[in-house]
Amino acid sequence: MPPSPPSLRPHGITIGSLPTGPSNTIADVPGVAVGHVTLGGGEVQTGVTAVRLHPGHPFRDKLPAAAHVLNGFGKSVGLVQVEELGTIETPVILTNTLSVGTAATALVRHMLEITPEIGDTTGTVNPVVMECNDGSWLNDIRGLHVQESHVRAALDGVSDGFDQGNVGAGTGMSCYGLAGGIGSASRVVRIAKSDFTLGALTLCNMGRMADLRIDGRPVGAAIAERIKVEKEPAESGSIIALIVTNAPLDARQLRRIATRSGAGIVRTGSHLGSGSGDIALAVSTAETVPHTPPKGRVMARHVLHEDALDPLFRAAIEATEEAILNALIAAEPRTGRQGRTRRALGEFADLVFG
Amino acid sequence: MPPSPPSLRPHGITIGSLPTGPSNTIADVPGVAVGHVTLGGGEVQTGVTAVRLHPGHPFRDKLPAAAHVLNGFGKSVGLVQVEELGTIETPVILTNTLSVGTAATALVRHMLEITPEIGDTTGTVNPVVMECNDGSWLNDIRGLHVQESHVRAALDGVSDGFDQGNVGAGTGMSCYGLAGGIGSASRVVRIAKSDFTLGALTLCNMGRMADLRIDGRPVGAAIAERIKVEKEPAESGSIIALIVTNAPLDARQLRRIATRSGAGIVRTGSHLGSGSGDIALAVSTAETVPHTPPKGRVMARHVLHEDALDPLFRAAIEATEEAILNALIAAEPRTGRQGRTRRALGEFADLVFG
Amino acid sequence: MPPSPPSLRPHGITIGSLPTGPSNTIADVPGVAVGHVTLGGGEVQTGVTAVRLHPGHPFRDKLPAAAHVLNGFGKSVGLVQVEELGTIETPVILTNTLSVGTAATALVRHMLEITPEIGDTTGTVNPVVMECNDGSWLNDIRGLHVQESHVRAALDGVSDGFDQGNVGAGTGMSCYGLAGGIGSASRVVRIAKSDFTLGALTLCNMGRMADLRIDGRPVGAAIAERIKVEKEPAESGSIIALIVTNAPLDARQLRRIATRSGAGIVRTGSHLGSGSGDIALAVSTAETVPHTPPKGRVMARHVLHEDALDPLFRAAIEATEEAILNALIAAEPRTGRQGRTRRALGEFADLVFG
Amino acid sequence: MPPSPPSLRPHGITIGSLPTGPSNTIADVPGVAVGHVTLGGGEVQTGVTAVRLHPGHPFRDKLPAAAHVLNGFGKSVGLVQVEELGTIETPVILTNTLSVGTAATALVRHMLEITPEIGDTTGTVNPVVMECNDGSWLNDIRGLHVQESHVRAALDGVSDGFDQGNVGAGTGMSCYGLAGGIGSASRVVRIAKSDFTLGALTLCNMGRMADLRIDGRPVGAAIAERIKVEKEPAESGSIIALIVTNAPLDARQLRRIATRSGAGIVRTGSHLGSGSGDIALAVSTAETVPHTPPKGRVMARHVLHEDALDPLFRAAIEATEEAILNALIAAEPRTGRQGRTRRALGEFADLVFG
Repeated sequence: MPPSPPSLRPHGITIGSLPTGPSNTIADVPGVAVGHVTLGGGEVQTGVTAVRLHPGHPFRDKLPAAAHVLNGFGKSVGLVQVEELGTIETPVILTNTLSVGTAATALVRHMLEITPEIGDTTGTVNPVVMECNDGSWLNDIRGLHVQESHVRAALDGVSDGFDQGNVGAGTGMSCYGLAGGIGSASRVVRIAKSDFTLGALTLCNMGRMADLRIDGRPVGAAIAERIKVEKEPAESGSIIALIVTNAPLDARQLRRIATRSGAGIVRTGSHLGSGSGDIALAVSTAETVPHTPPKGRVMARHVLHEDALDPLFRAAIEATEEAILNALIAAEPRTGRQGRTRRALGEFADLVFG
Repeated sequence: MPPSPPSLRPHGITIGSLPTGPSNTIADVPGVAVGHVTLGGGEVQTGVTAVRLHPGHPFRDKLPAAAHVLNGFGKSVGLVQVEELGTIETPVILTNTLSVGTAATALVRHMLEITPEIGDTTGTVNPVVMECNDGSWLNDIRGLHVQESHVRAALDGVSDGFDQGNVGAGTGMSCYGLAGGIGSASRVVRIAKSDFTLGALTLCNMGRMADLRIDGRPVGAAIAERIKVEKEPAESGSIIALIVTNAPLDARQLRRIATRSGAGIVRTGSHLGSGSGDIALAVSTAETVPHTPPKGRVMARHVLHEDALDPLFRAAIEATEEAILNALIAAEPRTGRQGRTRRALGEFADLVFG
Repeated sequence: MPPSPPSLRPHGITIGSLPTGPSNTIADVPGVAVGHVTLGGGEVQTGVTAVRLHPGHPFRDKLPAAAHVLNGFGKSVGLVQVEELGTIETPVILTNTLSVGTAATALVRHMLEITPEIGDTTGTVNPVVMECNDGSWLNDIRGLHVQESHVRAALDGVSDGFDQGNVGAGTGMSCYGLAGGIGSASRVVRIAKSDFTLGALTLCNMGRMADLRIDGRPVGAAIAERIKVEKEPAESGSIIALIVTNAPLDARQLRRIATRSGAGIVRTGSHLGSGSGDIALAVSTAETVPHTPPKGRVMARHVLHEDALDPLFRAAIEATEEAILNALIAAEPRTGRQGRTRRALGEFADLVFG
Repeated sequence: MPPSPPSLRPHGITIGSLPTGPSNTIADVPGVAVGHVTLGGGEVQTGVTAVRLHPGHPFRDKLPAAAHVLNGFGKSVGLVQVEELGTIETPVILTNTLSVGTAATALVRHMLEITPEIGDTTGTVNPVVMECNDGSWLNDIRGLHVQESHVRAALDGVSDGFDQGNVGAGTGMSCYGLAGGIGSASRVVRIAKSDFTLGALTLCNMGRMADLRIDGRPVGAAIAERIKVEKEPAESGSIIALIVTNAPLDARQLRRIATRSGAGIVRTGSHLGSGSGDIALAVSTAETVPHTPPKGRVMARHVLHEDALDPLFRAAIEATEEAILNALIAAEPRTGRQGRTRRALGEFADLVFG
């Protein structure tokens, strides 16, 4: 069993009211696994994070999915088809903005290998790659340092125990003027007599220090005052929020879930700056959608009644909010391009937990 | 049994390749019924058309639904909630643009009467009212001649046999510079071994004469030449297309169906003028969605596999195209406000059927 | 000069960092005026609020506008055309959910009176009416108590000094389990060397008590504990946020502003419940759009560069957040239908200001 | 001067009523240029087409742009940001579906070379790459044969004289069961006393033979009958329509233009099959949008009045329709993967021109 991920909880800070899953990560949703490749040396501060959504074949057994674009200053790929067809058919790759093309090609190549029928006896495949811009501060993003082999390694290395903070795609990210990166959290909701798990994984690269709130408290303003941050640049960077749940939902309902994830982002203090690409993607693992139509063409599906969604909305908000805070508390101080540095939230424990 | 509706078919003109239902109207979809109130006298050339979508209680047993706004220069009400929740919970009322408020109030009052729990022990109700502007030529639309009682009478008078042409909401409408109004058509598609029916009902008030095409033939240009139409005004007016099918589809799929309905509109020659509010609404009657959540909150649903939708797309295109042509062929010459007239397509039989 | 509106500011609570306008209401935007008609007696707890967006003719000189549907469980009318054409051409009417039709008809009638060309020599008019459901607790919404004359009176009574709290459309509204209603706030932002004003007016009818946050502090939870609220129902009701600014923006940019308004809602604690219709509408008064095309058909316009929008985004968030809190602090305890009551936030001054 | 592109016009077939520009291609819009790299040998039947939208620096001087997704079964990249910001900041690359990643990376590398500030002192860049699936019939799409160098060569080779038919990205495409590919057309519209040019370039890979219409005539059905096509597969493949005009339009208006382009697609007979990714992108070259904000942050812009758009809507429909037909008439018979063949429309001259 992996060591417990860093968390605010041992210090008495809980976000919201719902219980977490066993690991308080997205991997609490059965079948979900995460892999990182970290490229962290000198000017190169970037990486790749791969998220496997279920243990089955992602193309032959798709999952219902939907995205919500909170602010579209972003370069994610694959969302057009997710919106139209309501399904996702690959793992999700996260990386830096300018490496999206390389990641898409690597993901296509991976899918071709495990799916001989793609582009032969059936159609093509829709790779989903999402991104933030680590080049705004720490990473030499112009160097295009992510290679296809890194994407492959991240896919090969997925596990239900995974690191948070400035690792993988999060390596060079900045969040609220501090070291940012990958965070995760989960919630368990009881609907009628069934328990469903919802997990969030966020790639955090947004916000201005003075805006950071921890459970409503203006911690960022206190930090900014202590370290005498005078004038912060405009909000830029982006955040990606991936929500996965084993509750049975269709794509329309998942779009509603993805929208709520935006509320979790806001609760940490983001003002949704013009230059920030803020996108949420929500996926249900409850039932797969077969690529090949069943015999009678009609599929039996299960979905929650609309009146039962509120607990999941709340779970999406809480898990997203806590995932962002977990990214911050897990991140370590980092030096990158041109000697630029980012301090870590953990360095301000008295202000965070005080 | 009602007399056969007017049609191009006895004259050898068929639209598309799919078979029609028994009456070639939207009422071929089991449970659908249509009622008209026609206010056609002198300056007043308007009315109301009500469409009952299923014989059950519309609020307690909702239907999956979705809209597509082809051109949003329109004043339909109720679409925001249909988009969010994916269901429709009232009959559909069609009327003139400025009477939408009155129709909405009448529909609300009707729903309150048959549903004591609305606004008491449960929430409110979302009336769906759609419209075209008959005031652009024949009707004294400023007079606001539609009363709540007319809406009620249309609702009370629904039947599976109903008139087409310039009746009901279609009374004062113009289409391709001719008398327009209400048209309908249907198609039957076989998917795997099941037959599904798709019906269209259109309220037609758009287009310029020279653009009218009948199965691709430039009939409108020929008419315009004969009657020496010199300069037509810009396209305005609108078209509403209502598609109902008993195929099992969810809201996302119905949005795709509604989009295809737009192709049927285009095939009759419309150039989607800036001033034309062109909106399609698609509904599935296969399974209702209960207002009250079931015990375990999880609903078992059936939906067609995405690869099985093409025949329904084709049906939506064909039925919409033929419904528009049926409105034209059923309409009679009409004189209205300030002595203005609209000739009828049927007056040009040699050009239509030649 | 009207008396200062109720506010948290005298008690040392400021929301955000930007300065307010002189009155800290939407009327700080030059030309904006607000009128209420309050129907508050016994079972009838409802009303109408009218917002005049500029002193000119609303139809002949339209304003750029855009909406954002945060959660579409709502019955607002007029948004389809705003989305397509990017303009608004009437005042905005706010009322209860089931009176939207009546308000739309009254607004149409008003527009016909002041605009003889509508429906005669030019097209129709697109009334914008937005709503919340006061029938969920205090109002006998089934009674349809709002008459056209009330809407007219609200329009006739607009002023740049206006009440907040449970007045006008806000009369019977509930917000975070307390008396809700109409709130307003404003911000002034300096961009380059120019000052622009942005004002918010909110109709507040959403949220659960335990979720209320005031500048991040969990005040609602404290109130709920004191008055021993045991089990709150699901979030329902809705919030409407109207944002007006004199900064020069086009419709696409205004949609971005409207989206940010949602962040202000979230910051007060809302979890965007499934049953809550949350809609924001943003309008720019900087330059009108003439109904009649100018001679050469090309219009000279001014718009802010995209990189200059961040201060306005922040202003929209802050003003919306404070407008909601102002509604709460201005509202008075109220008794309505079936003797049901709502307490007022002001009754808990020690928790609010402590 | 290049030789006249293939066309139906010498044979007396004109599409619509508006005059064309001098070359009847997208290059009639001043500044627009197109380059192809064709990979056409044996199993490899694919390529790249690059479209330069204006002669200036694409990133420092962006252009207003908007997309319309007619059917989102597609993998185009870059549309999220175009939708949010209303601008395009790179040339457009067209290629096969699985080579989108490679093309995006090549385009990013090109932009980095000509723009040292990207990823250094300013943000990142949003590459726009659009695609169709040539692997459904002729091309070995699994081979990922497009290299970055091909993309670069297409960019370097742009010219205002360019080939149509199965060249560049169109090499292996199929359209209405025939050889498809790249087509183009243009229209000139007079608004007030000014002439504006609108050009279309389409990458055509959609449709079933029996559905093809040429100016409304069922030519495809006649061809299918002659060559005894028995059972056509479901519609798949996709079409990309790029519309460029020098009329002054903002992003919202360009979205309306893009929507109309869909009507041009429908008029050639497409039934918008579920598996077809049909996307239109519209761009205005009238005025650039500077990356760096001007001093006072306010930009003076010109846009057409909404009532003046109808001629441009018509131009978009006509140019798209004719561009598709030009692709078909320009294409040559082709043999590809596994000896599969596509016949050319030109082989059926008696049916086309008869």
